[in-house]
Amino acid sequence: MSFSLRHVISIKDFRREDIDEIFELAERLEPVASGMPCRLLGGKLLALLFYEPSTRTRLSFDAAVKRLGGTSINLGSVEASSVAKGETLADTIRVVSGYADAIVLRHPMEGAARMASEYSRVPVINAGDGVGHHPTQTLLDLYTIKREKRLHDISVALVGDLRYGRTVHSLAYALALYGARIYLVSPPQLRMPEHIKSDLLESNIVVEETSRLEDVLTSVDVLYMTRIQRERFAEPSEYVAVAGSYRLTSEMLSDVRDDLIIMHPLPRVGEIDSSVDRTPYARYFKQSFYGVPVRMALLVKLLEGRV
Amino acid sequence: MSFSLRHVISIKDFRREDIDEIFELAERLEPVASGMPCRLLGGKLLALLFYEPSTRTRLSFDAAVKRLGGTSINLGSVEASSVAKGETLADTIRVVSGYADAIVLRHPMEGAARMASEYSRVPVINAGDGVGHHPTQTLLDLYTIKREKRLHDISVALVGDLRYGRTVHSLAYALALYGARIYLVSPPQLRMPEHIKSDLLESNIVVEETSRLEDVLTSVDVLYMTRIQRERFAEPSEYVAVAGSYRLTSEMLSDVRDDLIIMHPLPRVGEIDSSVDRTPYARYFKQSFYGVPVRMALLVKLLEGRV
Amino acid sequence: MSFSLRHVISIKDFRREDIDEIFELAERLEPVASGMPCRLLGGKLLALLFYEPSTRTRLSFDAAVKRLGGTSINLGSVEASSVAKGETLADTIRVVSGYADAIVLRHPMEGAARMASEYSRVPVINAGDGVGHHPTQTLLDLYTIKREKRLHDISVALVGDLRYGRTVHSLAYALALYGARIYLVSPPQLRMPEHIKSDLLESNIVVEETSRLEDVLTSVDVLYMTRIQRERFAEPSEYVAVAGSYRLTSEMLSDVRDDLIIMHPLPRVGEIDSSVDRTPYARYFKQSFYGVPVRMALLVKLLEGRV
Repeated sequence: MSFSLRHVISIKDFRREDIDEIFELAERLEPVASGMPCRLLGGKLLALLFYEPSTRTRLSFDAAVKRLGGTSINLGSVEASSVAKGETLADTIRVVSGYADAIVLRHPMEGAARMASEYSRVPVINAGDGVGHHPTQTLLDLYTIKREKRLHDISVALVGDLRYGRTVHSLAYALALYGARIYLVSPPQLRMPEHIKSDLLESNIVVEETSRLEDVLTSVDVLYMTRIQRERFAEPSEYVAVAGSYRLTSEMLSDVRDDLIIMHPLPRVGEIDSSVDRTPYARYFKQSFYGVPVRMALLVKLLEGRV
Repeated sequence: MSFSLRHVISIKDFRREDIDEIFELAERLEPVASGMPCRLLGGKLLALLFYEPSTRTRLSFDAAVKRLGGTSINLGSVEASSVAKGETLADTIRVVSGYADAIVLRHPMEGAARMASEYSRVPVINAGDGVGHHPTQTLLDLYTIKREKRLHDISVALVGDLRYGRTVHSLAYALALYGARIYLVSPPQLRMPEHIKSDLLESNIVVEETSRLEDVLTSVDVLYMTRIQRERFAEPSEYVAVAGSYRLTSEMLSDVRDDLIIMHPLPRVGEIDSSVDRTPYARYFKQSFYGVPVRMALLVKLLEGRV
Repeated sequence: MSFSLRHVISIKDFRREDIDEIFELAERLEPVASGMPCRLLGGKLLALLFYEPSTRTRLSFDAAVKRLGGTSINLGSVEASSVAKGETLADTIRVVSGYADAIVLRHPMEGAARMASEYSRVPVINAGDGVGHHPTQTLLDLYTIKREKRLHDISVALVGDLRYGRTVHSLAYALALYGARIYLVSPPQLRMPEHIKSDLLESNIVVEETSRLEDVLTSVDVLYMTRIQRERFAEPSEYVAVAGSYRLTSEMLSDVRDDLIIMHPLPRVGEIDSSVDRTPYARYFKQSFYGVPVRMALLVKLLEGRV
């Protein structure tokens, strides 16, 4: 067993062999994710601490541990917990790490998961820390590309809000590990931050930037659409101005590659028209499903061999 | 196995033999509902998506799947999920149907469950869609009458809010399948809708209407009381005016049939005085318990033979 | 088996032999609380009804039943349940006691748990009823003293809000059972109520009262700090005035006994400075962990032999 991580905080902590090992296990666990009985994590208890709204991340972690025969305890809404009494995150983590075998944490504050890992006696998995990291999303994104296409010699367009979107930041780093060609497609005010672009270029991969989706639409292997998140804008008017600019419809797909795949981290609020759902390119619901076997594999790696 | 349904949306989708088959299994599962260990749904995962408040429906579905050795994942309050980010119900259903073996849905919009079933890869059970249907409530109501009395040759008074109450609408249709005599007892402004009365009369059963509870009290086999729901009224004053009119007390029961049973879908807020709880006629808490074996039987029928 | 209780409402209901029996079992269950697989409560279903915010009590009960192979159903936030429709607690309890094997109840109203036990067909465990009782907190406090020190011949300082704090009221009664010397340390306006002091003195134990923490700091075996709870004060200014008065820092610990242990029911909001966490005296996180084996033992005692 070469898996090297005790906590899962950032995709940058992963070596390529860690990722490969998780993906190999995830593939073997796909039948379990689809309902085949399994007790690999029988007796294990996962704590779900979500300080921000979430559907798919929380539900898929919960499904993952339960499909493997384990179970979970859930902080529930922040209003219904002692957080309302002013308890610090550090104290909550110390307490909860005495109850469970691992902790999944989503928190609005960047760096919250790293800090939590310093106080926890059990593995902490970052399920999103504000504008920071969301490593299991990146893993399932990569896994989708691997399973639905391939990870070597690939061109990927990252489309939409590349400035505030943590999902595309992490995915860009991960794709660089595999030598992908990356196309950054965004409105001018939502461009990928300069420091990330610098990091990517240092990896000696091809990185190109454009504000026009049509520049890349017919040539790429993977179209990764992202939500323009209303909550990232101080001004509603700023949101409205850009939200319409990157909306994909089935008409736009007439000249794409036959084997194009279209992905989206979901939820979408209009970036992909529902007419696209019925095209052979749509993979975003499959991508969402892949979150279960990937999170299963991660939980097994973190918990196996531990009492 | 003759059970014909893939989804459970409306009681009207059921044939009598579907209902009979569920009731036969429910009766065999009653000891399990009372705590006898069972693993009939071991490894199965149920998604609970409740977009509206619920205690007994959600808890009894959750108890049903867990008593059978399965488990659940829970959307939780709408505020704590991606619904707050503007995701459509169709997308949520497509995602969640990739995580679980079946979905229980309560939603404020009439028709939501039927629509959801078109997007789901797994069985959808309607746990109430606004003023629409709530078929498992109807099944447990029927089952209570069967277990505490009988289903053939029976007279039932439906009392209270017959206009807005979806519970009594569905129950009336189901009782018609068994040839019951139905007495509709309501204030004039809360009468059973005409189209439902027409449907019932087409079944060639006896249907009578009155606004006076005393007209039927001494003659019926079953008294089915319902809540006058505050949230169905636009005007608070309208609510107050009618709420007091159909309040049952133990004094009113002096001349009823010895074997009368009194039912209520709960929660009650005054329609049945607590003095009635201690009479031999009260069955509403037993009725609530029967929700567990009935929902167990339904889950088993929908999930058995599926991976 | 000599355990005498059917419901767990107040620590005053316990005989010393009941407590001893629970503690003996809790010690044997500590490895299970730490993750050793166990199915002692396999098939058992616990209902968690929390009408007030809670993290550790709810999560540790949930962890306890799940570590033992059972599972739970959860009322969730009051807003998301039928409580919002005006259902009485008595009716909710009657319904839920038809779904589960035991009920854990937290409620803002003093006496709620005792009342609930009169309507429930299954054991009710009081997890806090307003300013009333919280017996499992007392049990885990006592258990911590037993495991980290001893229960005979001990001196304990109860510090902070002794007027409104139900935790210290119950703990004081329990300590009296074991003949402890009790030091009551509080600001004048937050003194222990006279009727409790009278009860304690009738037990023929040493009880002393002071408003100065330094009077007892160097002599006691156990320092039990409590939170000055903001929500117990009608006036914010009253809260601010006293909150700062009983704040423990590591500097204050230079002359304490070598084997002093410091406890706190948590959450803390400043009563114990984080510098104390790294001293050898701190036991509050261990204390929090002990909530799991103690609640496990209690659940086993209440549920064993029942179907």
